[in-house]
Amino acid sequence: MADFLVQNCDSILEANQVDVENARKKNVSRAMIDRLTLNPERIAGMADGLRQIAALPDPVGEVISMWKRPNGLQIGQQRVPIGVIGMVYEARPNVTTDAAGLCLKSGNAVILRGGSEAINSNKAIVKVISEALAGTDVPEDAVQLVEDTSRETATELMKLNKYVDLLIPRGGAGLIEAVVKNATVPVIETGTGNCHVYIDSDADLEMGEKIIINAKTSRPAVCNAAETLLVHAAVAEKFIPSALASLKNLGVELRGCEKTRAIFPDALPATEEDWYTEYLDYILAVKVVDSLEEAIDHINKYGTKHSEAIVTRNYDNARKFLQEVDAAAVYVNASTRFTDGGEFGFGAEIGISNQKLHARGPIGLRELTTTKYIIFGSGQIR
Amino acid sequence: MADFLVQNCDSILEANQVDVENARKKNVSRAMIDRLTLNPERIAGMADGLRQIAALPDPVGEVISMWKRPNGLQIGQQRVPIGVIGMVYEARPNVTTDAAGLCLKSGNAVILRGGSEAINSNKAIVKVISEALAGTDVPEDAVQLVEDTSRETATELMKLNKYVDLLIPRGGAGLIEAVVKNATVPVIETGTGNCHVYIDSDADLEMGEKIIINAKTSRPAVCNAAETLLVHAAVAEKFIPSALASLKNLGVELRGCEKTRAIFPDALPATEEDWYTEYLDYILAVKVVDSLEEAIDHINKYGTKHSEAIVTRNYDNARKFLQEVDAAAVYVNASTRFTDGGEFGFGAEIGISNQKLHARGPIGLRELTTTKYIIFGSGQIR
Repeated sequence: MADFLVQNCDSILEANQVDVENARKKNVSRAMIDRLTLNPERIAGMADGLRQIAALPDPVGEVISMWKRPNGLQIGQQRVPIGVIGMVYEARPNVTTDAAGLCLKSGNAVILRGGSEAINSNKAIVKVISEALAGTDVPEDAVQLVEDTSRETATELMKLNKYVDLLIPRGGAGLIEAVVKNATVPVIETGTGNCHVYIDSDADLEMGEKIIINAKTSRPAVCNAAETLLVHAAVAEKFIPSALASLKNLGVELRGCEKTRAIFPDALPATEEDWYTEYLDYILAVKVVDSLEEAIDHINKYGTKHSEAIVTRNYDNARKFLQEVDAAAVYVNASTRFTDGGEFGFGAEIGISNQKLHARGPIGLRELTTTKYIIFGSGQIR
Repeated sequence: MADFLVQNCDSILEANQVDVENARKKNVSRAMIDRLTLNPERIAGMADGLRQIAALPDPVGEVISMWKRPNGLQIGQQRVPIGVIGMVYEARPNVTTDAAGLCLKSGNAVILRGGSEAINSNKAIVKVISEALAGTDVPEDAVQLVEDTSRETATELMKLNKYVDLLIPRGGAGLIEAVVKNATVPVIETGTGNCHVYIDSDADLEMGEKIIINAKTSRPAVCNAAETLLVHAAVAEKFIPSALASLKNLGVELRGCEKTRAIFPDALPATEEDWYTEYLDYILAVKVVDSLEEAIDHINKYGTKHSEAIVTRNYDNARKFLQEVDAAAVYVNASTRFTDGGEFGFGAEIGISNQKLHARGPIGLRELTTTKYIIFGSGQIR
């Protein structure tokens, strides 16, 4: 598939050009046009992504555990493909090859339903993928594209319980909500991340500053970026002036609680709404808390159960934070930005789940499998 | 909770008596009245069930795996409660204590929505449970009953994504379908079992007969009972007369394909419908197949992906069957009846899932948990 993508770069770029022109005519946002636009480098990047997936170990067939019962039955739990996965996503042609690669590598067939703005690009890409598959033992229909991008067709796909085993929506909050609301097929929600960094009373403040700067500014538009900084009152006067000045110098708009603003008057006043907001931008909410408990309560109330970090040197506080914060990934003394399939060592990911069922955190190849029990007997009856 | 149940036996039986009388007036089936009716022995049994659950190891807090990344981050995956579980079930008061016990033991709160016919029994049981919890550190509201048993309230419960993390329907196909159709909260389907036993050309026929007799007759009304017997043509003339005669003597009605009936004329003719049917009764469909492949295709087409068994002495056939049959539990030389939390060594179960996400097979305490990543750093940034 990677080779075919590169070889057929021209036909894909030609189709992409049509999509980009249509999008321009519709006055869609520059960010969206940027995500939509392909060029030879981006196609080479998509091909590289596929090669990396191909190089990963095959998750299918792994026996996670096997035990013997007193009656002699040997019971094993083996990873098997889920079956048919429906991907519902926005106008990002790179998701098309990513999803195809990850689903095939984990033994699944995939039905792709990308955003209408990328339909010509997606058609060209899936045509190339099918041609690549035609020369292999994998059925060419293992990767299919829903060419009708109407809302009705998408809704129909979401109700095909007999044919589709799992839906993975990937995109903004509106898309995900629509899938959760309309689907009868099981869904893994890939999530919004309203992530926090909490600077404890006993924190290494230099480390804390590095971590919040990294968590906020290394890539603000992604879901594992920090959106709110919580600072224990005991260190607020020491920590806030330096850290917030550094953030401000990096172009971050600061919105603080009253106590924060008393220390750092340049911060705008934060409203209740700010605590709930995933800015995905160079904006950070800042709140001074009086205790670790207040920090944990704030996170569990306003957070989206994605990635949460404490900076502390205190053993008990680290332990309490790890146990009591309800999120897919809870960090001590590290940036929230590590919540990622690659950084976790999974090799690749199809998204990050912040729902609790089946997959929580990065969705790698293992999360794209299910299991079956294989049972070896010698005539046992009950 | 177990002690309180036994101590308050009288008040529960009094409430149950009201339900049973109301049910009799409504002319519901005898089987349903039997499931609804409590007596001191049944209440003692419910209390014993709770004691057994209490004695199981706590699944919460277990770190399934932990690894170190090249940057020094230590990443562990720890079991944590799911949160709030909604149980939707029929008029079986014993499910009330079972579900409460399993959900609490796995650290979850539970909202119970039992069948309207058992509402007085359920109110009495949940009152007793709350009284028992009042003397502990567990909030008494951790076990709640939906007292309004209207359909509207049930549908509302199924859409409370903000408050309910998981729905588990337990009951007949109609109930499960209604939940899957109406719910926006994630659902684990507990399943119908159209299970097969396949007698291979190279089977120990004596073993095969014992297995099909056990799988069909030891408890026909449960989901892991066999519904169809597949017999390889090479052994059909030797196997069918004896096995079917034994089954018939045990009161099993036999419905066979033409080849079966040519060998065992007492069998009624099976229709296409029979291959799809979960009888849950003393009825067995029987089909002669020409090959292992035909057996596997039949199972994958008509089965419900629950429990499937091959009887064979052939290594390659055993392996092929294990790999190619798509089901929660696939057996070689053992009865399908072992698909059960207790028999698998899980101690207890809340049902058997034949969906593929999160839990496949018996849903024990571990399946009632999710995980979170706990990450130990020393100042890592990305």
